Amino acid sequence: MAKDKPAPASGRFAYEGLERALHEKARLGLLTSLVANPEGLAFNDLKELCALTDGNLSRHLKVLQEAGLVEVEKGFEQNRPHTLCRMTAQGRRRFLDYIGVLEQVVRDAARGANSAIAKGHAKRGKPGWSTA
Amino acid sequence: MAKDKPAPASGRFAYEGLERALHEKARLGLLTSLVANPEGLAFNDLKELCALTDGNLSRHLKVLQEAGLVEVEKGFEQNRPHTLCRMTAQGRRRFLDYIGVLEQVVRDAARGANSAIAKGHAKRGKPGWSTA
Repeated sequence: MAKDKPAPASGRFAYEGLERALHEKARLGLLTSLVANPEGLAFNDLKELCALTDGNLSRHLKVLQEAGLVEVEKGFEQNRPHTLCRMTAQGRRRFLDYIGVLEQVVRDAARGANSAIAKGHAKRGKPGWSTA
Repeated sequence: MAKDKPAPASGRFAYEGLERALHEKARLGLLTSLVANPEGLAFNDLKELCALTDGNLSRHLKVLQEAGLVEVEKGFEQNRPHTLCRMTAQGRRRFLDYIGVLEQVVRDAARGANSAIAKGHAKRGKPGWSTA
């Protein structure tokens, strides 16, 4: 009966910490590149590392800038225009918090997959399924 | 000089395996709930576990169904309408592949953050930055 089932832990898998500005696939790659290079990366190197077009990279950098995660410096190197992208201190903190939540997702998924194997998928299709 | 810099590993941080259908925050929570429960979860329990509204849950389940990741069974329990959501075998495989990529992101980010600490952020603002 429904009332005999254990109540699911409310919001257990809501993962509120997965901030949208950081969670998008391309931006996740950009931030992972930048966290290793606190001194910054050139626009063209970032483009290459993350396999993005000029337009896509510009668009994603704008989102990251507006969210306060990244700063962009336009200047010259060898008399040629040059754009340097750097993670802000706040960006670094928020990114590492976000990565902590991602780690939790990986742990939850691995634990869930293993417990499903342990259960042997035996209850498949039967009523009275359990909640996580 | 630009040509003296080491070439960045092309696409090293592109993370192509982060399939959009699975990577969205709410859907990631839904799949993590379902992977632990191969016998399925009731619509209402999923709603509770992932802190979603009826409308949002329906919308995300539709995306997951259309992507072949989840199947939804409408039936009756105790004479009341009842919806059971289950991960498909294909969904399980794709989700575990996806989780493998997520694990790689976490590893890359941790390694990057640690190497930045080791470098002591010393080059901050100086030209001639390195690439990851």
